[in-house]
Amino acid sequence: MKRVLVTGAAGVIGRALLRNLAGRYELCPLTHRPASFPSFVADISDLSAIAPAFENVDAVVHLAAAAAVDAPWDAVLEGNIIGTRNVFEASRMANVPLVVFASSNHVIGSWERQATAGLYALEDMRVFDENTEIRPDSLYGVSKAFGEALGRFYSDAFGMRVICLRIGSVLDDDDPRSPAVASSAPWLDLRTEERFARMRATWLSQRDCAELVACALDAQDVRWVIAYGISDNPRQFWNLRTAREVLGYCPQDRSPL
Amino acid sequence: MKRVLVTGAAGVIGRALLRNLAGRYELCPLTHRPASFPSFVADISDLSAIAPAFENVDAVVHLAAAAAVDAPWDAVLEGNIIGTRNVFEASRMANVPLVVFASSNHVIGSWERQATAGLYALEDMRVFDENTEIRPDSLYGVSKAFGEALGRFYSDAFGMRVICLRIGSVLDDDDPRSPAVASSAPWLDLRTEERFARMRATWLSQRDCAELVACALDAQDVRWVIAYGISDNPRQFWNLRTAREVLGYCPQDRSPL
Repeated sequence: MKRVLVTGAAGVIGRALLRNLAGRYELCPLTHRPASFPSFVADISDLSAIAPAFENVDAVVHLAAAAAVDAPWDAVLEGNIIGTRNVFEASRMANVPLVVFASSNHVIGSWERQATAGLYALEDMRVFDENTEIRPDSLYGVSKAFGEALGRFYSDAFGMRVICLRIGSVLDDDDPRSPAVASSAPWLDLRTEERFARMRATWLSQRDCAELVACALDAQDVRWVIAYGISDNPRQFWNLRTAREVLGYCPQDRSPL
Repeated sequence: MKRVLVTGAAGVIGRALLRNLAGRYELCPLTHRPASFPSFVADISDLSAIAPAFENVDAVVHLAAAAAVDAPWDAVLEGNIIGTRNVFEASRMANVPLVVFASSNHVIGSWERQATAGLYALEDMRVFDENTEIRPDSLYGVSKAFGEALGRFYSDAFGMRVICLRIGSVLDDDDPRSPAVASSAPWLDLRTEERFARMRATWLSQRDCAELVACALDAQDVRWVIAYGISDNPRQFWNLRTAREVLGYCPQDRSPL
């Protein structure tokens, strides 16, 4: 069974992985604070503190980040820039062969901001993918663009395999119809029904999210890729083709019409 | 006459600008150490120290950086990531309408490393441009990809005009036949004659470099662009089309055959 270090393991996605993948991998959680489960406690902004956690693992799933889209510069710098560099560097130092990096649609988020809410309609044909020109909507998005570029460099320079997942909307209650969706995507100027329409398009169920990460962990010959991950939603404006064709991802869930 | 703040003014490019553009703009040098000319002395890694230099300027030309391709992480972090963020942030705070950012071909440098030395031959047809997929060859290249992404965000979020120039090889002695070229591009595994061939392809004369920056400073309606800058060399594997068509750049110099 592969040993997989999971940074940010106490977050929504981290907990979804622990629940869904426990039998398939030996998951080793890393958290910056003591968690409700056993974990290696260290802050990714401190390279020497986290380095021991990277020994003898087969892969790293790097989820830890200042995850708020409106996170201020200091938090982005510590958590997402210095922290992500430390995760790649600790992986290199310990000869970890594979890093799965949780990237984000916010790398190109300004394209969505420029679009109208019609983007979320079933009949709209617009689709963005990993070839869309970088256009971050936030310092958070800039930091994820940095992480992808850094991952590409580590892949080329050190032979590390790096898989970047632009992960869709993973919800704590796993329900795209949840009343909480009314206050989702606060960075967009949308009406309530548009927020629900967007969530139906960007939703990634916890089960599909875990499956996507498992596909990345099991991919044999992928040296480098960026792929989007959402469930098999009726409207999709992020392209799943790379996840399906390169990683073998096959979503099981589908948001309601 | 436009007031233009130039960061990194004591470097090779900075001094070329001071010499060539002195009559056309009121150039305000910023240097991290006292220079041989009057300058505002402050380190760009210190936002509050540099902020006063950004008051009442019409544009910023941001050249300051840890410029060595093999610069270690700590230098890249301070000079190119924190420093570049501080330059954009100081520009925003002072309502500077235009930032010209010195980016680099190293943002996609791994494509060149993957190519053979035949890339530099006159008859080779391969051309890279700003649409080529990001593939940094170094932490330096990663930091320039970060700077471009950050510039795009500042452009979208704050209405700042941002022009990124991927500047070619500007030489201290301005001579692409200089014996010093034999030790140029140390990050590439090339024979001496290949280093000269590469320099003939990537050379940007000091005069053309200054003209390119002037084109960026004078561009009227450009909200955002990334453009390559080299002289009118016989072999060009970086595409000048955007510099010519969007910025009106017209190089006067040409490396020897």
